Amino acid sequence: MAIQKPSLPKGTRDFGPLQMARRNYIFDIIKDTFKLFGFQQLETPAMENLSTLTGKYGDEGDQLLFKILNSGDYLKDVTSKDLEAGSVATLSKVSEKGLRYDLTVPFARYVVMNRNEVTYPFKRFQIQPVWRADRPQRGRYREFYQCDADVVGTDSLICELEILLMIKRVFSKLGLRDYSIKLNNRKVLAGLAEVIGVPGKESELCVAIDKLDKIGWVKVQEELLGRGFENEAIEKLGPIIDLKGNNKEKLNFLKVFLSSSEIGVKGIEELQSVFDLLASYGSDETYVDFDVVLARGLSYYTGAIFEVKVNNVTIGSVSGGGRYDNLTGVFGLDGVSGVGFSFGVDRIYDVLEELDLFPKDQLVGTKVLVTYFDEEGVSYGLKTLAALREAGVESELFPDLAKIKKQFTYADKKQIPFVIVLGSEEIKNDLVSLKNLKTGEQSSLTVKEAIELVKL
Amino acid sequence: MAIQKPSLPKGTRDFGPLQMARRNYIFDIIKDTFKLFGFQQLETPAMENLSTLTGKYGDEGDQLLFKILNSGDYLKDVTSKDLEAGSVATLSKVSEKGLRYDLTVPFARYVVMNRNEVTYPFKRFQIQPVWRADRPQRGRYREFYQCDADVVGTDSLICELEILLMIKRVFSKLGLRDYSIKLNNRKVLAGLAEVIGVPGKESELCVAIDKLDKIGWVKVQEELLGRGFENEAIEKLGPIIDLKGNNKEKLNFLKVFLSSSEIGVKGIEELQSVFDLLASYGSDETYVDFDVVLARGLSYYTGAIFEVKVNNVTIGSVSGGGRYDNLTGVFGLDGVSGVGFSFGVDRIYDVLEELDLFPKDQLVGTKVLVTYFDEEGVSYGLKTLAALREAGVESELFPDLAKIKKQFTYADKKQIPFVIVLGSEEIKNDLVSLKNLKTGEQSSLTVKEAIELVKL
Repeated sequence: MAIQKPSLPKGTRDFGPLQMARRNYIFDIIKDTFKLFGFQQLETPAMENLSTLTGKYGDEGDQLLFKILNSGDYLKDVTSKDLEAGSVATLSKVSEKGLRYDLTVPFARYVVMNRNEVTYPFKRFQIQPVWRADRPQRGRYREFYQCDADVVGTDSLICELEILLMIKRVFSKLGLRDYSIKLNNRKVLAGLAEVIGVPGKESELCVAIDKLDKIGWVKVQEELLGRGFENEAIEKLGPIIDLKGNNKEKLNFLKVFLSSSEIGVKGIEELQSVFDLLASYGSDETYVDFDVVLARGLSYYTGAIFEVKVNNVTIGSVSGGGRYDNLTGVFGLDGVSGVGFSFGVDRIYDVLEELDLFPKDQLVGTKVLVTYFDEEGVSYGLKTLAALREAGVESELFPDLAKIKKQFTYADKKQIPFVIVLGSEEIKNDLVSLKNLKTGEQSSLTVKEAIELVKL
Repeated sequence: MAIQKPSLPKGTRDFGPLQMARRNYIFDIIKDTFKLFGFQQLETPAMENLSTLTGKYGDEGDQLLFKILNSGDYLKDVTSKDLEAGSVATLSKVSEKGLRYDLTVPFARYVVMNRNEVTYPFKRFQIQPVWRADRPQRGRYREFYQCDADVVGTDSLICELEILLMIKRVFSKLGLRDYSIKLNNRKVLAGLAEVIGVPGKESELCVAIDKLDKIGWVKVQEELLGRGFENEAIEKLGPIIDLKGNNKEKLNFLKVFLSSSEIGVKGIEELQSVFDLLASYGSDETYVDFDVVLARGLSYYTGAIFEVKVNNVTIGSVSGGGRYDNLTGVFGLDGVSGVGFSFGVDRIYDVLEELDLFPKDQLVGTKVLVTYFDEEGVSYGLKTLAALREAGVESELFPDLAKIKKQFTYADKKQIPFVIVLGSEEIKNDLVSLKNLKTGEQSSLTVKEAIELVKL
């Protein structure tokens, strides 16, 4: 067989030891937080039936699904006519499974299939990779992890509170200080559409004003005109676009501005309740920012809308979510409402790297490398190793009889902070020589003393 | 859109909260052990180029690979002629990626692509799902996790020692007592082939005697005859098949039996060294069983061969591995030898379930549910919740104002061990009523006292 130079499929990545240590640092903080708040873990298979996946993400989404070729003679039902009919029309003959595109549709499928076993309100979290046949570019991969938490089976705004609290806890633990959780409510957007005279048109309104940050008010106005909005309606939006102040001031303004819209008033009341719950919990509003133009362009939100932005970094938006009315309707089970959000781990990783916020000792896997000079050292070293591990100290013995310099280089490359050197003197006196590679300090100790020292 | 009844692709599974808690229990013990021994984590993408995967697992393996349909117009290069040529011949036109089939080939690819960055000896572990288009049956799935640990870049038998120690630690932590780690060496099998007069035929010999457990010696003899072995050679195997005794006795017998075979003697020496290292470490031979007919049918092992069997359960073999000479040769990098093994998590799960060895409180995610009767209770409950979580106690507030019975049912279903009840008396006196759902005990306490009690 010809020798090949192996490569990775484009848009995919390996995660080596350093990246894994850092990723696990993020995952662990998120998982601990989800558990502290009573969420339970779910995992679903990478493959789903195409009937489960298609039609859920729009035409574009369907195209971005990775499809699995049927096993065996996958061409057996394909005819020359099919070749003319084309790839889309013939798909069902060659593929019946695809890779999951997000964690929401598999979650909905799970709830429907296990509707009688699930305990409601069902607080589930799920941390798994998803796959999209997107054009790869900086920060966009074909395989990436999603970290979702959702509560289904309740309309309680306490769930919205919990989401705010979990985001705050995760960011606090990660050492991120300069960010804001933007919060809005779909009902407020519906109310806006009503009071500017375009009731029911909040979807179009959302799509346009969602771009406010990127393209500015002038261009948004042009887009709204292009979408058939009247100048009169657009002008009425002015005060909203210019809205300044703290959450209370903005809520007070909107109370008046939306007073003629029943749904708008309801949206403001919901937002007010969330802020009240936050106060009851004893958590202040720091980091939480009512943003009346936040829309996230996602048409299935029916209540709260969240988005977390980190300030002063290249990629800002690292988390988002919202409330939905009907998670499982598409699978024939109505009435399952809920609220959820997702942490973008790849983006959080990039942000922590950009801000140099990863702990410096994060990589430390092995704490002690046991080194030696001869066969006698191996045998004594193995006993030392046994004692270290018995005490829970991550430790290794260099496996080959090698020059001490080579053994130290290994410790250095693996960022192992302590090295035990076993010379004949140490062995004779039943001691070990422990060297701290950061400080250079070295001392002869009993194994027990050495363990105490490295565990400090 | 027509309502669909969703289903799972055959051979795949969801893991709900109970299963996830139990799986994580196993994963955590394995991960902790790998880290304690200085192994570092690697993750590779689910998708690999087909050029990386094909030709590595034999013809059968190639057929069992899940292939990904090319994105976009996947039929564009397929002609009527291709339809006649068939599925196998046309594969390269419709698919260039597949799902990983194991963790070894991706590991080899990683080492080759990162040969200059890797620190040797490279001790890596990898815990990820793999996919095989096998016919699903009891205990065999199309998606399942592998837990691999390998050391590459050294021939030191200390690595074999480490594998034995890691297996012993994992099984001890899991509470498994009745198992044996079967240990053999490919060189011993090569020696056997030499001394019975069929040098170089150890592969065929292995395939046949690998079945000894399943089909018995008589059938194995028939198979050997069928494979062209002479009666004389087969008869010489007799003493080996009947071999009894402890490790030392078996090694002593083989030293003599294989004395005319250089490679056989080398194999026995290696095994002897591993037992000596085990003694130096201070770990006895309990659970380690030299099994001269262990072959695992895998032709790429060149030294040690491991297999772990749990006794008195339906599915016995839960872990296996061995030493190999040339991990990365197929990708053009020679000389990377190593030794590795794999825990079968799905099988360990089944074994623990069969033996009822999962900890009884494993599922406990949430420790305290805060319940209440009215709006006043919500506000007081939120403060209580904040205090519990600040102290690291996993806790929830029932999100809806519901009958207390409903709230208790929720606690019961989620196996939450403590419930805090907030009546008007408690609220007035700044106390909480804490109920232990197992013992039925209930007492009025300050939040601080309650926290201390549930943290016991």
